[in-house]
Amino acid sequence: MTSLGSLYGSKEDRPEFKTNMNVDYVVQYKLDKGQEEAEAGFIQLIEALTRVGLASEVRTGDESSLLVFVRVASPNYLANHIYRERVQDWLYGVRISTPDKDVGNEFTNQPVAEAERLRTVYLLITKPKNEGGAGITPNVGQWKNVTSVFPLHDHAFNRQWIKQWSSKYFLNEHDLEQIRDKFGENIAFYFAFMQSYFAFLLFPASFGFGAWILLGRYSWLFALVTSLWSIVFFEWWQKKEADLAVQWGVRGVSRIQHPRSQFKWDHEAADPVTGEAVKVYPPTKRLRTQLLQIPFAFGCLAILGALYVFCFSIEIFLGEIYNGPLKSYLTFTPTIILTGVLPTLSTILGSCAETLTDMENYETNDTHHAALVRKLFIINFITSYTPLFLSAFVYMPFGNLLVPYLDIWRVAAEKFTSEKSIATQGFHINPDRLKKQMIYFTVTAQIVNFALEVVVPYVKRKVFNEVEKAQAKGKALTANDVPEEHAFLERVRNEAKLDIYDVTGDYREMVVQFGYLSLFSAIWPLTPLAFLINNWIELRSDAMKIAVSSQRPTPWRADSIGPWLNALGFLSWLGSLVSAAIVYLFSGDAEGPGGDPSNIVAWGLLLSILVSEHLYLAAQWTVRYALSQIDSPGSQKERAQRFAMRKQVLEESLGLEVTEKPLPPTPAAGEKITRESLEEEARNISTKGGGTPEELFWLRQQGMDETIQIGRRLISQAKVATL
Amino acid sequence: MTSLGSLYGSKEDRPEFKTNMNVDYVVQYKLDKGQEEAEAGFIQLIEALTRVGLASEVRTGDESSLLVFVRVASPNYLANHIYRERVQDWLYGVRISTPDKDVGNEFTNQPVAEAERLRTVYLLITKPKNEGGAGITPNVGQWKNVTSVFPLHDHAFNRQWIKQWSSKYFLNEHDLEQIRDKFGENIAFYFAFMQSYFAFLLFPASFGFGAWILLGRYSWLFALVTSLWSIVFFEWWQKKEADLAVQWGVRGVSRIQHPRSQFKWDHEAADPVTGEAVKVYPPTKRLRTQLLQIPFAFGCLAILGALYVFCFSIEIFLGEIYNGPLKSYLTFTPTIILTGVLPTLSTILGSCAETLTDMENYETNDTHHAALVRKLFIINFITSYTPLFLSAFVYMPFGNLLVPYLDIWRVAAEKFTSEKSIATQGFHINPDRLKKQMIYFTVTAQIVNFALEVVVPYVKRKVFNEVEKAQAKGKALTANDVPEEHAFLERVRNEAKLDIYDVTGDYREMVVQFGYLSLFSAIWPLTPLAFLINNWIELRSDAMKIAVSSQRPTPWRADSIGPWLNALGFLSWLGSLVSAAIVYLFSGDAEGPGGDPSNIVAWGLLLSILVSEHLYLAAQWTVRYALSQIDSPGSQKERAQRFAMRKQVLEESLGLEVTEKPLPPTPAAGEKITRESLEEEARNISTKGGGTPEELFWLRQQGMDETIQIGRRLISQAKVATL
Repeated sequence: MTSLGSLYGSKEDRPEFKTNMNVDYVVQYKLDKGQEEAEAGFIQLIEALTRVGLASEVRTGDESSLLVFVRVASPNYLANHIYRERVQDWLYGVRISTPDKDVGNEFTNQPVAEAERLRTVYLLITKPKNEGGAGITPNVGQWKNVTSVFPLHDHAFNRQWIKQWSSKYFLNEHDLEQIRDKFGENIAFYFAFMQSYFAFLLFPASFGFGAWILLGRYSWLFALVTSLWSIVFFEWWQKKEADLAVQWGVRGVSRIQHPRSQFKWDHEAADPVTGEAVKVYPPTKRLRTQLLQIPFAFGCLAILGALYVFCFSIEIFLGEIYNGPLKSYLTFTPTIILTGVLPTLSTILGSCAETLTDMENYETNDTHHAALVRKLFIINFITSYTPLFLSAFVYMPFGNLLVPYLDIWRVAAEKFTSEKSIATQGFHINPDRLKKQMIYFTVTAQIVNFALEVVVPYVKRKVFNEVEKAQAKGKALTANDVPEEHAFLERVRNEAKLDIYDVTGDYREMVVQFGYLSLFSAIWPLTPLAFLINNWIELRSDAMKIAVSSQRPTPWRADSIGPWLNALGFLSWLGSLVSAAIVYLFSGDAEGPGGDPSNIVAWGLLLSILVSEHLYLAAQWTVRYALSQIDSPGSQKERAQRFAMRKQVLEESLGLEVTEKPLPPTPAAGEKITRESLEEEARNISTKGGGTPEELFWLRQQGMDETIQIGRRLISQAKVATL
Repeated sequence: MTSLGSLYGSKEDRPEFKTNMNVDYVVQYKLDKGQEEAEAGFIQLIEALTRVGLASEVRTGDESSLLVFVRVASPNYLANHIYRERVQDWLYGVRISTPDKDVGNEFTNQPVAEAERLRTVYLLITKPKNEGGAGITPNVGQWKNVTSVFPLHDHAFNRQWIKQWSSKYFLNEHDLEQIRDKFGENIAFYFAFMQSYFAFLLFPASFGFGAWILLGRYSWLFALVTSLWSIVFFEWWQKKEADLAVQWGVRGVSRIQHPRSQFKWDHEAADPVTGEAVKVYPPTKRLRTQLLQIPFAFGCLAILGALYVFCFSIEIFLGEIYNGPLKSYLTFTPTIILTGVLPTLSTILGSCAETLTDMENYETNDTHHAALVRKLFIINFITSYTPLFLSAFVYMPFGNLLVPYLDIWRVAAEKFTSEKSIATQGFHINPDRLKKQMIYFTVTAQIVNFALEVVVPYVKRKVFNEVEKAQAKGKALTANDVPEEHAFLERVRNEAKLDIYDVTGDYREMVVQFGYLSLFSAIWPLTPLAFLINNWIELRSDAMKIAVSSQRPTPWRADSIGPWLNALGFLSWLGSLVSAAIVYLFSGDAEGPGGDPSNIVAWGLLLSILVSEHLYLAAQWTVRYALSQIDSPGSQKERAQRFAMRKQVLEESLGLEVTEKPLPPTPAAGEKITRESLEEEARNISTKGGGTPEELFWLRQQGMDETIQIGRRLISQAKVATL
């Protein structure tokens, strides 16, 4: 049982956590078809693995699956693969220095990290046969019964990792390097981002605390400082990201990521770069499909917006107008509706987004993923921020005008309960509504989220395991286990049951959080402080999630946080507009327009938005320029490597001397050259006779001394002439 | 006499235009000091030239100068220099393919273009001695008397060029290539830009013509289309520019441009890239100086703004209020004041800009130039657009409120003329004022400018020459001329007198024009048509200016239109704000607010600006994304070259086979590998005895067949268990 207890508790010296039995990957094979089919599929699997030099051992999984343990049997073939991948990296400019001619030297100079080994083995298992892999695609087509392919956790490392992190405040480069070596750059980038974000939050957290004491809510100064902070953070991270990519040797790796197997092509053509035949899908055709994103976005806004407006109106009615029986219970109605409907709606819209992205038919997994993330961001944006938008820009300014329309709920309720008349109370705008909502989103929701993410899966697993143990069922199957392997196999069976970790969800959470900060933090200046505390825990609970409650992820490479960067930039910019509007509407007295739009000076509102946005753009330009003036160690390193590589190639092919500065001829030699060439010309002329005007022109003064002589004569003449 | 006539007329076969006597450069040496000093300087000059393998011939210039004709006497030393420069290009990534090992082959494969030769010779003359040059810096320090160093025009080419261009509408790639070969990429980029701008203008010109007939002035549709057009043009040009840079092999050349001789450094440090010692000036220190640009911009605005407001108020007073004697003459007063004061003020502010840029202390000529251009753009922006801003946003909306203040002019005039009372007329906002101004700037000013640029210098030169001929003075000096050289020398003396061509002025003119189009064309929809016609002439008159009325420029390299790109982007963006404001204020009836601000709905104005700007930003994002999806031939070529280069290096150093795909072992071989490794393990264990758990784990199933066998047993068991 993989649990917190087992990592920290007295059982920490249990031997099954100490070794992975040299297993590289575990393949889970589901048995759901008839026995013959299952056997045939199994034989194909083992043959395919053996063909690419992988040794396999089979053991019982759970009641309806086998576990196939895979290990590299031909280190040469693997080394060959890794070496070729490094060569390919160099060909596409990801790697700057050429790989060493000697394969042995290459691996001595740049040893194979665990992440690189695991990635290559995974590719060996999954790549198509014509590219030298076994062509096993989990859950797809012929390999439908292969439900997962995962490496085993390095529990010794995980324990060390969690222990270290829980006792330090900041992560350093070394910590990130470790994650990179174990889980790949893709996940390391997430932690690097989290760490930078956390460190950057210190400033607005302390400033916000000061503002909370001294300035109160809706302070323009606080909004301005937060906006400037978000610019600096965003620009700085862009630079940092590029820097890390260089330091980790993955810059530009997104260009050579792996093709999508579902990609449909129109025709084949020669790649203009490599000259190989590639499959082409015309970008104009894709562009047309991409335009569907616009109705999609409006559709999401209409559907989710309608749901929110519906719940919002019920909430206002029940909370602030209705005064009849069961009021304290009825106020939960909108929450119940939202909790019930929203996840379903999100899932439906999410699968629409997936269909749409499939239709856009991208060539690589990375571009496909980025396009999907863009659409998910739209859905997330609407679900996360609509309640606050409704409160700030509908309820507060237009409340008094709209409340009469809520009468339909009274009428409906009267019909429904067949009572004559429902008790109501006079309506007053609730000035604390915004702040309460904001506290809910920044504190309560984050705690709930933490519970859903960490505590619930943990409890669920614990209960499941207990239930399973209570049933005798498993016993019969594991009777096959050799006693000394039993503990290890039980551990692997547990890991096989864990979820697959997807970093996208964690990024989404952080980006949505950044949005609250950038858009609405003027409402409650303690927002950044709450996020700071949350993120300290989040960073560690994410580590825990990877180490304890997920299968070990395949260590992919990445050269940035990908499509989330644009989302951050967008939120940071939008913050300059929304914050300005909020501060303008509510500063002074917290009631703001108090439910009546006639209290708003429209041109004042628009002017403050306009000014705020342009201040934002100007500040962004300035920060970007200033940062561009400061050389980053990563780009410096890159340029130095590139230069050194070129110099080396040059010296190898041309010899050392060409890279040194040329020395000019000595004065005498120079004179000799000019005299010689002139004398030769003179000789030519005398043999040919005559001479062209050009030849004659250059023979009038033979050599430097004659030129000087004649020059002196001309100078003295000129003096005479001008006197 | 170099003139239009001489290039086209009956005299076109004059022999002095047919040959440049193999001269590479002409050095003009001024004689203004005492004879000894002049002689000493002259001797130094000739010695310095000879030392770097240049032959020289001296002839009389005008009454107080000598002409030193320079030619490469050591083709080897020059070839060496060119080759080393190509190697340096490669080292810094400008050139993608390595230069050929054999210098001869290299020059056969990529012959030296005239521009490359001339540039290298110029560098040979001007580079510091420790870098292999003669160290002659015209007009500076020791070389104060060297007033100019220029190559001779290729008149045969020039004649052909002008002739061709005057008979075709569009320039093609070949025309640009020719300019590039003769005058370098720096000037070729200007013509490429002009050509693209001209072609792009066709659309708004025809649309504007339609709008003029159908929609009238201040049409929001026309403003919208113009704004979209400016986005497409700007984004397209950015792409085109990068493309041309690749095709011309100059991409990234701005990074390795030549150091500024006036650069002052703080300390020396090792270059992190090349490892050489370089001079360092901390960027933070520079950043502090750069902040002075902000007060500078405000200062310019205050000074020039005050001048304009002063003239503007006089103009309104004299033109629309004053009704006394001499009115028709007096209305020219503001024009006279502006014509007198503005150039002086611009010059003063321009030299302030230069001082400021000097203080910013840039390392290279390119960055220095870009910083200077930024400041000049501020001055130009204010001088060009203030009159229209004043009319559109001060006169039209606030006219009636401000006119009473103009009474001071009446009072002043009465005091000055000591008349009792000056005749005035009732003031009415002149609704045609804006349009008239716009026509002035788009038609009249462009014609005046053309006259100043082309006709005046031509007439001046003609008159000067006549005067000179009339005086006998020159005769005495040219008496030294050998008769057969006389015509040629006269031609060179004429070229020495010509202005130095600076492409900055031409760029400035076009950028300012683009600004009128983007900011104010809603006022008069024929604006783009007027510019289209103007630019057809401009393109040819610029060619004429280079060919006929300037010294032949030294052919520098460049990889873009440089700092002007930012100016274009800024004007295009600002256009979305200004156009929206103009359309909102004046559409419907042309009087707009009619001098009274209370006619303006402030929130409507602000909202239309806000909406327009965000439409602009969204459109820009879309266009940029769409263009990024379309591969450009240049970047494709670059990637292909880079790939081919890397592949070649790889094959040279590692052998061909590594770039091919690895073949997996055959099924039998795969089985052999796994069996062999397992058997070896078994042997090891039997010799050592015992065996670790890991070793034992992998020995349970020896080889594929055993795994399959056991797997089948487990499958049948599982089926039994689950039934």
